[in-house]
Amino acid sequence: MTGNTARSTVLPVAPSRGRLRPLGLDEVRITGGFWARRRQVNATATLDHCRDWMERAGWTGNFRAAAEGRLGRDRRGREFADSELYKLLEAMAWQAGSGDTAHDADLAALTETVAAAQEPDGYLNTAFGRPGQQPRYTDLAWGHELYCHGHLIQAGVAQARARGEGELTKVARRAADHVCATFGPDGDQGVCGHPEIETALVELARLTGEGRYLDQAALFVERRGHGTLPEGEFGRAYHQDDLPVRRAGVLRGHAVRALYLAAGAVDVAVESGDDDLLAAVVRQWEAAVARRTHLTGGMGSHHRDESFGDDFVLPPDRAYSETCAGVASVQLAWRLLLATGEARFADLAERTLFNVVATSPSEDGRSFFYANTLHRRRRGTVPAADAVTLRAESGLRAPWFAVSCCPTNVARTLAQLPAHLATADDHGIQLHQYADAEITTTLADGHPVALRVRTDCPYGGEVAVRVERAVPGRPWTLSLRVPAWTAGATAWLIGPDGARRPVGPGTAQVTRAFRPGDEIRLELPVAPRWTVPDPRVDAVRGTLAVQRGPLVYCAESVDLPDGHDVDTIRVDPSAPPQDGPDGTVVVAGEATAYGDRPDAPWPYHPLDTPAGPPAAERRGIVLVPYHSWANRGPSTMRVWLPAERPASHPLRLGAEGDV
Amino acid sequence: MTGNTARSTVLPVAPSRGRLRPLGLDEVRITGGFWARRRQVNATATLDHCRDWMERAGWTGNFRAAAEGRLGRDRRGREFADSELYKLLEAMAWQAGSGDTAHDADLAALTETVAAAQEPDGYLNTAFGRPGQQPRYTDLAWGHELYCHGHLIQAGVAQARARGEGELTKVARRAADHVCATFGPDGDQGVCGHPEIETALVELARLTGEGRYLDQAALFVERRGHGTLPEGEFGRAYHQDDLPVRRAGVLRGHAVRALYLAAGAVDVAVESGDDDLLAAVVRQWEAAVARRTHLTGGMGSHHRDESFGDDFVLPPDRAYSETCAGVASVQLAWRLLLATGEARFADLAERTLFNVVATSPSEDGRSFFYANTLHRRRRGTVPAADAVTLRAESGLRAPWFAVSCCPTNVARTLAQLPAHLATADDHGIQLHQYADAEITTTLADGHPVALRVRTDCPYGGEVAVRVERAVPGRPWTLSLRVPAWTAGATAWLIGPDGARRPVGPGTAQVTRAFRPGDEIRLELPVAPRWTVPDPRVDAVRGTLAVQRGPLVYCAESVDLPDGHDVDTIRVDPSAPPQDGPDGTVVVAGEATAYGDRPDAPWPYHPLDTPAGPPAAERRGIVLVPYHSWANRGPSTMRVWLPAERPASHPLRLGAEGDV
Repeated sequence: MTGNTARSTVLPVAPSRGRLRPLGLDEVRITGGFWARRRQVNATATLDHCRDWMERAGWTGNFRAAAEGRLGRDRRGREFADSELYKLLEAMAWQAGSGDTAHDADLAALTETVAAAQEPDGYLNTAFGRPGQQPRYTDLAWGHELYCHGHLIQAGVAQARARGEGELTKVARRAADHVCATFGPDGDQGVCGHPEIETALVELARLTGEGRYLDQAALFVERRGHGTLPEGEFGRAYHQDDLPVRRAGVLRGHAVRALYLAAGAVDVAVESGDDDLLAAVVRQWEAAVARRTHLTGGMGSHHRDESFGDDFVLPPDRAYSETCAGVASVQLAWRLLLATGEARFADLAERTLFNVVATSPSEDGRSFFYANTLHRRRRGTVPAADAVTLRAESGLRAPWFAVSCCPTNVARTLAQLPAHLATADDHGIQLHQYADAEITTTLADGHPVALRVRTDCPYGGEVAVRVERAVPGRPWTLSLRVPAWTAGATAWLIGPDGARRPVGPGTAQVTRAFRPGDEIRLELPVAPRWTVPDPRVDAVRGTLAVQRGPLVYCAESVDLPDGHDVDTIRVDPSAPPQDGPDGTVVVAGEATAYGDRPDAPWPYHPLDTPAGPPAAERRGIVLVPYHSWANRGPSTMRVWLPAERPASHPLRLGAEGDV
Repeated sequence: MTGNTARSTVLPVAPSRGRLRPLGLDEVRITGGFWARRRQVNATATLDHCRDWMERAGWTGNFRAAAEGRLGRDRRGREFADSELYKLLEAMAWQAGSGDTAHDADLAALTETVAAAQEPDGYLNTAFGRPGQQPRYTDLAWGHELYCHGHLIQAGVAQARARGEGELTKVARRAADHVCATFGPDGDQGVCGHPEIETALVELARLTGEGRYLDQAALFVERRGHGTLPEGEFGRAYHQDDLPVRRAGVLRGHAVRALYLAAGAVDVAVESGDDDLLAAVVRQWEAAVARRTHLTGGMGSHHRDESFGDDFVLPPDRAYSETCAGVASVQLAWRLLLATGEARFADLAERTLFNVVATSPSEDGRSFFYANTLHRRRRGTVPAADAVTLRAESGLRAPWFAVSCCPTNVARTLAQLPAHLATADDHGIQLHQYADAEITTTLADGHPVALRVRTDCPYGGEVAVRVERAVPGRPWTLSLRVPAWTAGATAWLIGPDGARRPVGPGTAQVTRAFRPGDEIRLELPVAPRWTVPDPRVDAVRGTLAVQRGPLVYCAESVDLPDGHDVDTIRVDPSAPPQDGPDGTVVVAGEATAYGDRPDAPWPYHPLDTPAGPPAAERRGIVLVPYHSWANRGPSTMRVWLPAERPASHPLRLGAEGDV
């Protein structure tokens, strides 16, 4: 690890050390394509949508009532509702950091509302401590007070980085000082049931240079895993309180909690040079990715406790894959990428961004998936546009939730997304995610450089990087991530001189004294491809999925003939999937109307049961990008597609069975 | 359907009409073999165990406190705890009906305890109506008052049939009169959230000849399905209140509720000659068996609401398959068999008895499975011997549950089991289930007949029926069920003259003027066989199970080399399963220690990924009867075994994957 002096200040994560130096929102602009459209919808629809729903749900009013001394038992929303306002403020701050002034008035007004509710000692939470409410810190397991303080601090850091220190930053500092005073080495020895304060305190330490915030974050990381939280119905692993962070072998328990904690542990490890702690998180990440992650990058199999399942227990119809766990996984991967420089972390971030984070919001940015199932058997019902929805109730995107953590989490992620595209190091510039973008920064030697990236990702595989500005005669290295999904096909790197060379997954580099006008091109193979699961994943044995570039595809009932159902699809994996129109993919296979296949009296048959009636009509099955599903009304959907009759399993329908 | 005058009175179910006439506990004795051992353990261990736990848990004390006027808010147990005492009384009565006098004193004492708690108007429930308790019938959805009355009435009927009408029968009559007075045509128009009263009232009508009990049962059946119960979080189908019984197409909602209701509807249909209603239940049974039943006969996929899942949603690791749903399914199948004479109902009853009902109790009859999963990935923990266990918490059999419906339901089923073996009709005798038994009855023409059955079922397939007594010169028909599981192999019927003829699934008959000493033999093919699931069952695609006769088999970790795990088993279905020692089966395949296969970085691979390292040691995998699992300490277990590399899916481990 090397020292790391970021040039930009507009950074969501600004480590003082690490393999790579992040580029900020003032250095990277997304100018077009997939993510530009998503960010546009986020900026022009989602932020206002969140603001309005929080007003309507009374969550913003909680702060006003607190400031006026009239809040008590009548407080609205769940115990963590304050944090949604903070996440919205953070999103608005990052928008400001990207030069978007449209939310400045809201940012100022909401900051004032929040600031007015802060207690003299820095404590700020609308759910605790007033007459008719529980006393402060009497329910660390479920009260979310430190969690809320963490999001407040992150918002204050974002404001400082985007616009310079302002009122929100002062509120955040006071809150952090209160936390340190209360939970310091000689204070309350507890930890919060929901990690979040750890990353926040480290980022505040990075902003302010005050080591006590880092020390407090390190204390929280080290205190966890010693069973100080009550065991509860889900067990100690739910709160990651079963094992100390540095001793655990895999991410476990509540997925968002596990990922936020891991991100905080990386932050602490990086700032304190604790390689042992960093290695522990890398090991947990590796095991979770190898055994506990859905094809989409989604994490979490359990609906009831929103947690990781056991190894290889990844049923697509029970995939919880909470949107916030996707956001948290991107945050963790980004920190690990900065610390290690390893492309595998950017690979998972890309997968998760396109297939979880991009799946949550509807096309209009005004409704959201909380859970992101990989298989839906019944058409969902359209949630009421003006009502709060329970977490994962309807099967369709909902405008707002009783637990509404996901909309604001998507909003702050999209707002900060340009900062996840590129980094620098002593040797040059690294591109990790591909989008139409303009990058302007200075190299380690202080010389300015500007790049323009053009790409048709994620539907195409062409990436062109044009050097707009460079100091002649000074050689440096441009690094381009070659995604792991190119394995088995050939990717090409074309240098400024037109020379083509094949490049494999990992990093492709060009080192030279670039001149303005030089263009480096990457050709990524994006033919759609069949993907098969590890045989230990019981729930998807005998099925295949289709991927194309970084996108996971799915079959959606609206693309089948009327009355046909995704659960009758059988695909022929001997034929490669083909590109269809408008980003679709077509695979060979058959589908029938659900009722077309008569029931056998009993659904279990002798292995040698003779063949039933001939297969239904053979046709092409149209698949759409998973992130786009459920934008055309209620439908059924599946990612994993059963193969026709594997030869060693002569399964046939309609045969007589033994009861 | 023909009129039906049972000769025996010792009958759990005594329809006045129907295709078959049941034989009672005074006509059929089980004398040895599998079920004799189970019944012995039930009689000598389980009944006392249940009595002692109910005393200890305070559920019996509730009745004493009620009688003494000192019961209120301090009542012990769940709202349906009274019914456990009634089910135990019913079990004791059937034991008495089989000539077992060991429980007579308990039966008398507990009857006295119950009787003393009855209110003057016949109402009897320890949970409602007293100071500090909810008023009567203010929570029909969850209060279980009619459910408890139903079990009380069934106990009273059992006493009358086993020993003649006594105190318990009088209590039951008073309770039934109270129910009719309260819920009659002009009374409360509600239904109970848990069906049970329906079968009970019909049986009381059959016992007493009083039609008003039947009318009341018919009223309850017809009232259901009109949305009178609150919808609640599980929806109206949970209570079968979404559709009238005669309009529903499939069993749905809470499995035990659905099956008890269906049994009650059959009872009403049979007594009132309502063929439309009977046909509706047959249709629902057919659909549930074709699409919503586990290989074991177990019903119910959902843990949270204990309910049937959607069609073909039968994940083995989430199989709830509640023991009580197995008991209820046997009750329904028995009623349908009596009504129609069709062997398919006895086929399902046999499967369910051997693989669900027999699985629940431990070998010593003092601990029980509540849920009967088909796949357990983690070793369970041994429940405390002296503590109450939550429903399905430990993964191992537990001595008693907070909701302890299953132990007493198993107890009353085993106590009445001889009455499920054989029936009579105008033409002769039918044998439906095979066990060592003595059968003594009179034929339709009034002449006595006695049979002795000897068999090595379920492990062997030899059934020998010796005519011990018959009136010479009077021809009659002996019918033997040829189980559906013999399909694909040959079963042989050997007549008294030694002539052999092949017989297929269904019913094999011999008609002659039998003489004492005549022997009819059935040879059922019981070689172990591979079974494959319907391809619509997503959760077990690419796997096979082994069955042998009526028994489902499973792999249990205690039979694998130390450290090997059932989840690494891969079987070779090209080799037929072989008989092993002691009722085991051996299949070709491999298993490894769980950690022996290195993780790929990502568990999803291109279809054409090259082969990984060679397979682990090839060996025979020992399988044991499913009902016997978890009797040798904590273990992992699976019924559905993945096949090695289906040819169209070259899935391999250890290969590089794309993240």
